[in-house]
Parts: sequence; C-alpha cells; structure tokens
Amino acid sequence: MQSLSHEDIRRAVRAALAEDIGSGDVTTLATVPATSPAVAIMRAREPLVVAGLALAEAAFRLRSRAVRIKRLARDGQQVAAGARLLEISGAARAILGAERVALNFVQRLCGVATLTARFVDAIKGTRAQILDTRKTTPGWRHFEKYAVVCGGGRNHRIGLYDMVLIKDNHLAALRDAKPNPIAAGVQRARAKYLQLKVEVEADTQEQVEQAAAAGADIILLDNMSPAQLREAVKLVAGRAKTEASGGVNLKTVRAIAQTGVDFISVGALTHSARAVDIGLDFET
Amino acid sequence: MQSLSHEDIRRAVRAALAEDIGSGDVTTLATVPATSPAVAIMRAREPLVVAGLALAEAAFRLRSRAVRIKRLARDGQQVAAGARLLEISGAARAILGAERVALNFVQRLCGVATLTARFVDAIKGTRAQILDTRKTTPGWRHFEKYAVVCGGGRNHRIGLYDMVLIKDNHLAALRDAKPNPIAAGVQRARAKYLQLKVEVEADTQEQVEQAAAAGADIILLDNMSPAQLREAVKLVAGRAKTEASGGVNLKTVRAIAQTGVDFISVGALTHSARAVDIGLDFET
Amino acid sequence: MQSLSHEDIRRAVRAALAEDIGSGDVTTLATVPATSPAVAIMRAREPLVVAGLALAEAAFRLRSRAVRIKRLARDGQQVAAGARLLEISGAARAILGAERVALNFVQRLCGVATLTARFVDAIKGTRAQILDTRKTTPGWRHFEKYAVVCGGGRNHRIGLYDMVLIKDNHLAALRDAKPNPIAAGVQRARAKYLQLKVEVEADTQEQVEQAAAAGADIILLDNMSPAQLREAVKLVAGRAKTEASGGVNLKTVRAIAQTGVDFISVGALTHSARAVDIGLDFET
Amino acid sequence: MQSLSHEDIRRAVRAALAEDIGSGDVTTLATVPATSPAVAIMRAREPLVVAGLALAEAAFRLRSRAVRIKRLARDGQQVAAGARLLEISGAARAILGAERVALNFVQRLCGVATLTARFVDAIKGTRAQILDTRKTTPGWRHFEKYAVVCGGGRNHRIGLYDMVLIKDNHLAALRDAKPNPIAAGVQRARAKYLQLKVEVEADTQEQVEQAAAAGADIILLDNMSPAQLREAVKLVAGRAKTEASGGVNLKTVRAIAQTGVDFISVGALTHSARAVDIGLDFET
Amino acid sequence: MQSLSHEDIRRAVRAALAEDIGSGDVTTLATVPATSPAVAIMRAREPLVVAGLALAEAAFRLRSRAVRIKRLARDGQQVAAGARLLEISGAARAILGAERVALNFVQRLCGVATLTARFVDAIKGTRAQILDTRKTTPGWRHFEKYAVVCGGGRNHRIGLYDMVLIKDNHLAALRDAKPNPIAAGVQRARAKYLQLKVEVEADTQEQVEQAAAAGADIILLDNMSPAQLREAVKLVAGRAKTEASGGVNLKTVRAIAQTGVDFISVGALTHSARAVDIGLDFET
Amino acid sequence: MQSLSHEDIRRAVRAALAEDIGSGDVTTLATVPATSPAVAIMRAREPLVVAGLALAEAAFRLRSRAVRIKRLARDGQQVAAGARLLEISGAARAILGAERVALNFVQRLCGVATLTARFVDAIKGTRAQILDTRKTTPGWRHFEKYAVVCGGGRNHRIGLYDMVLIKDNHLAALRDAKPNPIAAGVQRARAKYLQLKVEVEADTQEQVEQAAAAGADIILLDNMSPAQLREAVKLVAGRAKTEASGGVNLKTVRAIAQTGVDFISVGALTHSARAVDIGLDFET
Repeated sequence: MQSLSHEDIRRAVRAALAEDIGSGDVTTLATVPATSPAVAIMRAREPLVVAGLALAEAAFRLRSRAVRIKRLARDGQQVAAGARLLEISGAARAILGAERVALNFVQRLCGVATLTARFVDAIKGTRAQILDTRKTTPGWRHFEKYAVVCGGGRNHRIGLYDMVLIKDNHLAALRDAKPNPIAAGVQRARAKYLQLKVEVEADTQEQVEQAAAAGADIILLDNMSPAQLREAVKLVAGRAKTEASGGVNLKTVRAIAQTGVDFISVGALTHSARAVDIGLDFET
Repeated sequence: MQSLSHEDIRRAVRAALAEDIGSGDVTTLATVPATSPAVAIMRAREPLVVAGLALAEAAFRLRSRAVRIKRLARDGQQVAAGARLLEISGAARAILGAERVALNFVQRLCGVATLTARFVDAIKGTRAQILDTRKTTPGWRHFEKYAVVCGGGRNHRIGLYDMVLIKDNHLAALRDAKPNPIAAGVQRARAKYLQLKVEVEADTQEQVEQAAAAGADIILLDNMSPAQLREAVKLVAGRAKTEASGGVNLKTVRAIAQTGVDFISVGALTHSARAVDIGLDFET
Repeated sequence: MQSLSHEDIRRAVRAALAEDIGSGDVTTLATVPATSPAVAIMRAREPLVVAGLALAEAAFRLRSRAVRIKRLARDGQQVAAGARLLEISGAARAILGAERVALNFVQRLCGVATLTARFVDAIKGTRAQILDTRKTTPGWRHFEKYAVVCGGGRNHRIGLYDMVLIKDNHLAALRDAKPNPIAAGVQRARAKYLQLKVEVEADTQEQVEQAAAAGADIILLDNMSPAQLREAVKLVAGRAKTEASGGVNLKTVRAIAQTGVDFISVGALTHSARAVDIGLDFET
Repeated sequence: MQSLSHEDIRRAVRAALAEDIGSGDVTTLATVPATSPAVAIMRAREPLVVAGLALAEAAFRLRSRAVRIKRLARDGQQVAAGARLLEISGAARAILGAERVALNFVQRLCGVATLTARFVDAIKGTRAQILDTRKTTPGWRHFEKYAVVCGGGRNHRIGLYDMVLIKDNHLAALRDAKPNPIAAGVQRARAKYLQLKVEVEADTQEQVEQAAAAGADIILLDNMSPAQLREAVKLVAGRAKTEASGGVNLKTVRAIAQTGVDFISVGALTHSARAVDIGLDFET
Repeated sequence: MQSLSHEDIRRAVRAALAEDIGSGDVTTLATVPATSPAVAIMRAREPLVVAGLALAEAAFRLRSRAVRIKRLARDGQQVAAGARLLEISGAARAILGAERVALNFVQRLCGVATLTARFVDAIKGTRAQILDTRKTTPGWRHFEKYAVVCGGGRNHRIGLYDMVLIKDNHLAALRDAKPNPIAAGVQRARAKYLQLKVEVEADTQEQVEQAAAAGADIILLDNMSPAQLREAVKLVAGRAKTEASGGVNLKTVRAIAQTGVDFISVGALTHSARAVDIGLDFET
Repeated sequence: MQSLSHEDIRRAVRAALAEDIGSGDVTTLATVPATSPAVAIMRAREPLVVAGLALAEAAFRLRSRAVRIKRLARDGQQVAAGARLLEISGAARAILGAERVALNFVQRLCGVATLTARFVDAIKGTRAQILDTRKTTPGWRHFEKYAVVCGGGRNHRIGLYDMVLIKDNHLAALRDAKPNPIAAGVQRARAKYLQLKVEVEADTQEQVEQAAAAGADIILLDNMSPAQLREAVKLVAGRAKTEASGGVNLKTVRAIAQTGVDFISVGALTHSARAVDIGLDFET
C-alpha cells in the first residue's frame, strides 16, 4: 500500500476540524468536564474495505496530543460488519469534538475503496485493470485516489500535469494540422514533454488506427460497445495500451473486460460512491 | 435563496484548480494555441435541481479574467435533461483547464440538491421539514448545506458552534447530575450560552418527557418507529419542537412525516448523494 | 474556566512575534551570547484579575522549545500587587525576544478581566449578569471574550453568526411587513435558523410589547432610564429575557441592575479597558 | 501624513470580518433583502483626531465591491462632535455586515490619535517630541504607530529589528566586558549593524556619562525625576539625543519636556487609549 | 513560448516585495512626495536573451495598480547591449520601491536564458537537444525552467512527480531483484504509473543494454566519455532515447552532441548562471 | 556566527520540498520499500566555506522525523575537497526524496560563502570590510546574507526598511530643496526616522562634501576610481564612514581597499556566485 503525505493529511483534517468546530464545541464545553476520560471504538457497521484510517487518527490527535490510538485494521483490508477499526482513548472532550470529522473522512474513503473492490471483483480472471478518473471531489484528489488503490484499483493520471491526454476538444483545435490532427497532437506533445506518456481519445476505428500509427502510448476507447472494443483491440494489435471508458457499471464491466482492453476507467468510483456505515461507540 | 460567501468560493475553487492543474495543463499547452477562442455550454444530461453554478463560474474566471459567462439557469431551479446551465466563452485554454473542476463541483452539488428535492417531494402535504446533518464532505460544509436549501430542505446547525445538541455521550458524562442528566445538561447549557437553542437527544419516552420538562427547545427522537414517534409527539404536546432521525430513506420518510414531527434529518442528503450527469459541450 | 483554542493562541502569538522581531532582535544578537541562560519572573505591579497566561507562555515557547515555564497563578484569580504570575527559565535570548509580546498580550487581557470584575462586583446581590459585546479589538474576539469570563462576566453572542439580533436598521428594512416589523423579523429568523435564539432591540415600550408578543427570546432595552427599564421588565413579565444596554458605567450599573433586567451589556469591557501594569524581572 | 500598506489593511480587515461574520450574518440574511440599498454616515460623537479611515473603508469594500464611499474627513484632522467622517452607499447587507468591524478599527485608532494629540498639546512650545513605544496591541503595531503620527507624535523604533536599544537586561549579560558594559555593548552593536542607530538605557548619571562617552546615538533616561533629567541633559551636552521614559502622564509631561530632553516616550498612547465614540447612522 | 502561471508570479513577487520592503521603504517615504510621477526604462547593459519580464511587471503593478507598463521586448528575444526592455510610468514611490525586486528577478532569469542560448548555439547542427535538471534554486523551479525554454533549451522532468528516473541509489535497493535490478525497477514503475515515462541511469554498457532490454523510454548515460557515449548510442540502436549527463560545459558540449545522443542535460544552466547586467534608468 | 530563524528555514524548505516532490516521489515509491534504511554522507567535492547546513538538515527532517543527523562541519568553516559535512541515517525513501532540495540549498549558500571568503582574503591587511547588497535572490535574502557572514563579510542593510540610503533618484525628487538636495534629504530622513542611520550616494567630490556637511552617517562613493576614492576619503576626513561601490571584482578589490574606504560593497557575492560542488553518497 502506498502512503499518503503526512502534511496533506494534517492540512485537510485541520481545515475540517475548523469548519466543524468553529468558535467552539459548545455542547461538550457545557456538559463534559475538561478532565473526563473516555475510550471509544470505531467500528464497521457493514462489510467494507478499509481506507483512510490515518485521517481519522489525525482528527483525534489534532484535538489532543495526549490521545492514544490503536489501529485494529489496516487500509486495504476487507472487514465484516462489526469489525473494530480503531480504539481511541483520552480526553472525552477531544474525542467528542473530533468524532464527526473522523467519521466523515473514513466513511467516504471506505466507501470509495469498497465500491472499487466490487468492480475489481467483477472482472477477476480477465487481464483488464480498473482505473479511476479525475472525477474526484475537489480537495480530495489524493485521498480518493489512495482509496481506489486500497480497493484494488489502479490510478490513472493524478491531474492535468502528469500525462498528456488528447481529447476531442483538443483535436478540434488541431483540426487542420497535417497529416491528421491526431498525428499532429502526438507529435507536438512529444516535442514538448519528454517525460510523459501520451494518450489519445478515439471515438471511431479510424481514430484508433490514427492514434496507434501516431505512436500513442495509450488509446482511450470512448463509449464503444463490447463489439467495437474488441475490434479496436484487434486493430491496435499491441501497438499501444487500450482503455475503455463510458457506460461502465457493475453490470457491464465484465463484458467490457472480456474484450481484451488493458484498462477500464470508472468515474463512479469517486463521483458516486456512497458513504459506508461506520460508527464510534463509547465504552462505559 | 441565500448566498454563498464569495471568499469561500474563491478559496475552494482556487485550491481545486491547483490540485488538478499542478505544474500545468500539459495537453492543452501542447495542442491548443494561446489565442484560440472557444464557446462551451454546460448542460444537464438528466433531470436535476440546480445548485452551485457560482462555483463553476469561479473556476472559469480564475483561469482567465477575460472569460464571459452567461447564467442560463438559477440555483434552486428544477431543470429537464438537456437544459442549458451556463454558457462560457473565452480562451479555449482557460475553458479546457477549468472544465473538470467546474463539473466536479456542480455535479456533486446538484446531486445533493436533487436528492433533497426528492425527500421534500416525498413528504409534501405534511407539516414536517427535511433537515440536513453534519455528515457533510469535509471542506464542503457550506456548499452542501447551501445545496440542501436549493433542493427545498432546511439546515440544521452549521457546526458544533451554533447550537447545543446534547447526545447520549454527553449524558454519560452527566450521569450523576441532579435531578437527572438531561435537566442538568440543559441547565448548564443555558447558563453558558444565552444565544443558542438547546436540543436534546432522546431514545426513550422517559427521556422525551425529561427533555420537554427541562425546557429543551428541540427534542431529537432517535431511531424511533412511526408509532413511537407519534407517541413522543403527543407526549411533548408542543412544549418543544421534535426532530426524527435515523432509518430515514425515500421509502420510510412519508410515514415518519405523518407522525407529526416538526423536522426529519437525513444524513444521506450529503453523505450519499451521487453526482448527477452534467456535461460541457464545445460549440463548433 | 473554559479554555482557549491552542491553535488560535499559536497563530496570534506567532504573528505578534513576527511583527515585533521582524528580521531579528538586533540588540540581543549583538549583546547576549547564544548560550546565556536566564530566569525571569512575570509579576503583577498592581492588583488585578489574571487572564491569558497561556498567551504569554506561548510567546516564550515559540521562541525556544527548551524554555521551562511554571505557572504561579491561574486565569480568573484575583491577585495583589507584587504577585508572581509566571516563572520562565531558559535561553536569555529567547526570553528577551518574547518579553514585550508576552506582556502586550497579558497586560491587555488582564485589563479586560480586571475591569469586568469591577462591574461584576458593582452589581453583586442583584440578579443581573454582566455581558460583553462585539466591540472587541479586531483579531482578539476570542481572547477578550475569554478575559471577560475570567473577570466573572458572561459572553453575549460571539459574532454575527451565532444569534439573531434584530436592530433598528434591520427593522427599517422590514418597515412594511405585517402585522408589524418586529413580528415579521422574528418569524423570518425562526423560519431560517432553527438553532439560534432571537433577540430584538426595543427603544420604546410599544416595541418591547411587540417583541415579547412575537416570541423573542431576549429583548434588548436600548438606552432606557432605570424607570423605563423597570417598566419594560414589568411589561415583559417573564415572556423573554431582558438586556439593558447603553449608558452603562461603574456609576450607573448598580441602579440598572436593580431594575430587574437579566443582562447588562457593557461595551467598555473590551473597547476601553486600559492595560494593567505587569512586568518581567530577570533574576540575577 | 505617511501611508499605510494597502496589503496590511486588507489582511487585517479581512481577518476581522471573518472573525465577526463567521458562517454568516444571520440577522441580515433573515431580515434584509439582497437587493435593498442603504446610505450610512459614519460620524464622530465626541471631539477627536481622525485616524484609520482607510480601514473602515476596506471593511465595507471587502463586503461588496459595489459600495461607494466618500471620505468626509482626513486622517490627522481634528474634528468636533457630530462631524461626518465617511458616507457609505450600497447594499444594506454589505453595510450592516461590516459596520461593527469598521467601527471597531476606527474607534480604537482615533482613540490613539486623540490621546496622542493631548500629549503633544501639553508640551507645545518646548523642544521635546512625543514618541510611542512597542507597547502596542499585538497585530496592530503598524496601525497604532500610524495613529500616533496622525495625532502629531513621532514613532520610536518599529520593532526589535530597526534599532539597537541596550537595556539593563542586556547590560547584565555584558557584566564583565571591558572597559564597561555600556561601552562593550555599543561597540558590539556597531561592529554588527552598520545601518542602525544605537540607544542605551541609563538609570544613573554614571551610566549616562558612559553611554555618551561610548558614542550612543540616543540615551534613554529611565524613570528619572525632572531634576535628574535636567542634570542628565546637561551632562550629555549634545553628544547624544536624550529620551525620557517612565512615569509620563498628562500631568507630568510638560515638566518633563521642560528639562530639555529631545524625546518623551509614552506607552499609554497605545496601551491605554480608550476607544472614542463614533457611530454609523443609516439615512432614511 | 509557453506561459508562466499568473498566480505563481504574483505569489513569488509579493513575497519578494515583502522581504525587501518590510515595514516600509523609508528612504522613499522620507524624500519622495506621494504624488511625484516618474518614468523609468529597464535596459539591457550587455547582450542577453530576455526572460521573465512578467515578473518585473508584476513587481511594479503590485506596488501600484496605477502604474502603466510598455513591453519593449519579448521573452526569448536576443537583444543587444542598450536594448530597452520595459518602460514603466507612474508614481515615483511605487517604481523606486519595486526597482530592486524587479531587477533581481529579471537579471537572474535572463542570466539563465542567456547561458542556455550559449549551449544551444554550441551544438547547432547536431540532433541533440539541451535539457535542464532539477538543480534549480529552491522556490524558482518554474521560473528557471521557463527561462531555459526562453534560451532555446528543453525541460527535463519538472520534479520528482512527473517521470520515473531510476538512479544508482534506487538500483541499490533493488539489488537482489530478478532477472536484474534494472529490469525489476522498470517493471515495478510500469505496474504503478501508467502515465509516466521511465528513464534509467546507466554507468556501464552492460547497464545500457539492460535498460534498453527492459524497455526504458530514456537511458541516462552518466559521466561517459564521447567514445563511450558513441558506443552506448550504437548499442541502444533506437530502442530508447539517450541522454548524456555529467562533465558538460561549453568546451565539451559539442563533442558530446556529436556522439548521436538525443539529449544533453546541463545542471549549470540553473545552478551557476550569473546574473546579467540590467539597469533601470529614470527619465528626467 | 549569528543564527537563522528556525521558522524561516522551515518555511523555505517546506516550500522547496513541495515544489520538487509535488504529488509524490514516484521513482522511490516504485522501487524502494518503505522500510529500507540508508546512511548517506554529504561531502564537499571541492574546497569551500560551509554555510547553511541547517537548511539541508531541515530538508531531511521534514521528510521524516525519525532521521538522525550528525553535523560533521560547522557553518563558517573552510573545508577541503572530500570533507564530510553531514551524515544522515534513516529511511531511504526520506533521504532520497530530500536529497536534491538539501543540495540545492547548500550548494548555493556555500557558493556565496566561498566567494565572499575570496573577497575577504583579497583585502586582508587593509582596514576595509566587504559588504553585501540587496542584489539577492528573491526569497533568499536572509539565507544569502547569512552566508556572506559565514564567508567573513558584513551585512549592509537587510532591506529598504532598516536604513535610509538616499540615491540619485531620490535626489532628483528633492531637486529644488534648499540649501541643496542632499542636505534636504538628510534632514527629512532625520525628522522621520530617529532609529536609522542615513547614507547618501555621491557621484562627485562636491556631493561627497555636501553629504559630509549634511551629517550623513555613511557616504556611498559610487563608481569612483581608486584615485577618486582616495580623494573622497581625504575630503570626508572622518566625518562619516565611506563605502566604495561599483566595478568591484577580485582583480580590483585590493586597490580599492587600499584607498582607505571603510566598506566595499559587492553585488556579485549574491547575484553571481556559482553553486559549489557538493554530493550525497549512500553508504553500502
């Protein structure tokens, strides 16, 4: 499992605590003495794939340096309903003030990992790999891409900066370039960025051929039927990697994987995963 | 419709652009001339309730001050599939570089508004109101609460700072207080915060009575069946507002509303709304 | 005593040190060796109520993590001239560089607490409570409100966000609303903010009656004489809390408190408290 | 009149608005329509010296770019009770939301300027000049030093970085240096900082002589009686500037000025000025 | 010419102005009236390649929005001694306060561009291209890489994030991996990052062969003599791009280029370019 | 040796790491296990004067708190080629990720110190001192001025705020002031800034005389030949310090020093020092 940046975690969690607590956790200040201790268990309330425990941990720690935390599960692990994820002990005020923020992070990230795992399971035995997209929650790109990996998926490019991906709108700007817009686009990208792979979106078999001929590293096969995908894979014949995109869901994904594509990218992993149910129980 | 803070919008959108663009939108820099103009239309691809167009607008403007934008719909409006939401004209580079960020914001916020509207519709004719919760995406509290209002819902407290809400974990700390923990909690909150309402969570009819007797402004009826809710409403008899919470979904919400509660809070509005389908089409 | 946010303290103190030290404490760098140790005592030079020692402590700690500090008094304590408040030992350079900032914070906050205590003493035996206002030093809201509590006062709302307070200028905007502007204002606030109390400013007994009838939680009795206050309290007859405001000073406050109002708000607590005399003495 | 930094103003005012408004000006949002216009006059309610109108202006502008502002007085001007300082016209919501912040800045800064002017008046006809100190409100150093200038005073060093000022605690560290601690301190400062003046604090005439002999640029005569000051001035005999400090108030300042010192520094200008009375009246 | 990020420029220039101006440009405040106008010409005092005029422009604009600026040269242009680069007209105070910062940026960036151009000229007619490295001034990565492009060079990877470059220290960690460390490294990088090119550092012909066989996109030929480089290029035989690195200076670069390598990376472009002479002359 | 601000170091190094590492050190993540340990030695590869080891240290520490570092040299020390400067042991990933940033800082700062030492050596035996200027790398002012001191030089003013330096452009604004612009400038500066020294730039002997007569603390002798410098020093006759500036290089500096000037300021120390060769070797 790769690791998240400690600084990214702290920045995001600190901002989330400020957003929730604002000028003070009034209920706790009024009802819970500063010295009351507490022990709480974070627990899965449904089966899920774990992701992002470090963010929950940071939420409690940023409220009180004296909190003690035991990790009872690890990111990437598949757990059953009832599984214990974290044990937190320390000042009751600190735990109560961070509870919602910790859960808000973990429920969403476990949701992404869990949904990813379902897609990965669905194509088991094929050679395809599940990819995420840039359809992430603004501010959460790194966390959600990490959760995808926790769920067994792979990351596509992280942002606009670490890969060239020439889409129809870029081709429109290259309309009159010779010998064809795709060849021109690939050539210009190569001339400018020696460090990056170049992917080209293709809507037709003609574009697939142009992209392969132009030396694209990956060809994005957009909104093609399984039959079209199969034809495209055959046409490419190993000259480039192929990525299927569009119309992918848990019902269609296996058929898509069986066309022989290398990658299947799924926006829903990050834009439509629901939060899974995780709770924090105080021990008495 | 209330308005979002201009500063909050700019801060969030600027961070989102930085996250996506990083050291540069390499594809656009390589393929689209700096001077190429473009016109793009943001369009609903399914029926939805609009929310958050100002964030999309900010994404384009922050990439180029010279972009011109026409609002073709307004937040809170219910639109059909195909409806035009925004028209953006300006430098193609600026529009392409902000496209994904703009959509990432708007698809999620319209998703929240659209889901809220479904809950609001489901209880039409009852006296209950749909509330959101603090189960929001960290960093998005204000935007998601705004989207709830766009969808016809009402906001519960914004954070831990603008209402006292005494839950079971707080009552545990007050265990031995006289005459009972609920009365003690309400009294301490009143003594400390003259400006805030006090809500008390009740799991049993006995607690409902204690909360009402203690002068709570609102009583949170947690995980009660419609029959229990009806009994609680009767018991309270107007001494406080009542809020139903737990186990609320589109199938159960109407029965809950018909029990006579004042409010129904629904975590799913913000923690499990899926992104709705919205696209950006370039005109040729 | 409630606690200040550790993060707020560090942010404010760090900024204050940067403001004072800028590109370097030139005198100390030129005259005091890096390794010279020192012990210094922070001492009250007049009778005062202590507030804000944590800010002084942070000033020294932020200059050197190795500084050792003993608290010799606690916030909220009334001390005599000569009382020792803090003992600081560590690098002489660190102590000298933070001295002025530490004192600038503590002298002002003890000044607020001390003045508050004088008002609180002045109304001893009545049922009224002394409140602060929003007339605080920009940037110091939380610190000054905390100092008011140290002095025995209570906090009014923290900012514009945690209470509705309808004043004459708001009523002007509601001029034509039915049945009357006050009723309309209260109703609109209730419809929008379920979590907040609603206070209404009243300049006349007629407005007092309207506010009470509209169900205001608190009625602000603005610039009324003791006789008028007494009449207003009688008119309200327990339907709402009452707050006297305007023309309050140490000479008038007791008479105001004796009118039966619940609260007396005093802008001077924070806008016109003078700094009390506190010094830092180096031991030899 | 020198000018404040536009960036400093915006940073301070933006922070002050965030502190006051937090998650929203709930009263205004509930009662004042977004489109209601208003005109308001900022007015002196007692005689005062104007300082800091730019901060008030920034408060309104940062709430709404569309606000129009007329300056009706200028910083440094002495005005009578009732004088109009600013006219603000624009959205009522923007004006109401910024009102308190604008007044909180201006009342304090005019307070500093007004108190300074009283000291300056008190020594009219002597050759002495009134100086401020570093006893400023943390975060307000530049604003308060500017207000001192508005009131006719002069600024001492801005912070620890722009002058060497050797005090008793520094001399303690130089205890054994030859030929005497003062000479050693001045020499070390000269060797390190070619760009800065060197001032030395003297408690006795012997120290005054040592400082003058060591070539100090300014000698700080600390807590001396007028007789001692006169003797010190005579002893220095023009070899350095002299500054009186300690025990300075409106009753003693003239006698001190008449001793022939060049400067009189007064901590009270910034640490104990009360806010002057300024109001914002809405025109109907 | 590609463009720099407007936000990056403003952030860097704002920080540079704060660093230089601190609490105020005392000389200008004391001697130049606020209303004095001035016109100044930025002029090359030696032949150079222009780079970074936008940073100079930002320096003046951030001091005064009212400054008017004419660009008299464009980035990437080779100019003679005496050439006029910018004309700035506006408040004398603003121009004087920004002068040094503007020159500090432009002199360094033109220095990088000018040195790059000398290397590019030195290999004219060969097929090699001059690359920069990550040996840039911390905080200046984007600016210096931009200046390299202005001088006719190409950029290597921008940072550690946009290309895999396996060096000896990475190979040490892969020591026991099969079939060989280089193959293992390339395979692991491919499995993790579909979007990035993979470069491998080779010190020997054996490593060159392993890298080519492993499918590296680029092979870094480290510290090889021209003879060794020629042999390596022949061995690679078009299977990968080749990059020469180490021992490159203006005397050796042409011989290196003639070996047939694709790229020559030169750390000196950014770590040892001297500032070129550019002045600002005020017109009278 | 004076010390750098811990906060300045952390801010600069943190920014530099973010700039280089961005979304991740992909090579290390792909090839080096999270648990691999490493030991690395930072070593001088040419003779140099050490400066800025604290910045290198911070780079490693900010990547991993668990890194252990031994300082094997101290700032200001002259070391031979091959000298060991730092030993770093800890996680290989942390060391590899910080390597380039650490070297980028240290190579440049040692470069400044080493060049300074050459100038200082060149004037050994004269009474002149080598000064830096404000021609520093934006963002690096404090670090480069510190490196100058490490090399045996002295600092001129730190920025525009800590000294008055009246140059020709300021005199232009004072053109008609009586009795002459220089006298007027000095007088105005004295009237405004009691804490700062005043330096005046003089291009002619007439201006030298005016500056000395006006009581300038230092006179900047701009672009004068040794003969003119000697004449100027004689003319000043101890009334002020003298500083030679312009046309200073390692060939001319000794002759300039022998004219009797107090200071020689050298822009090249900071604007044109090349990075010295320092490497990081991993132990096996």
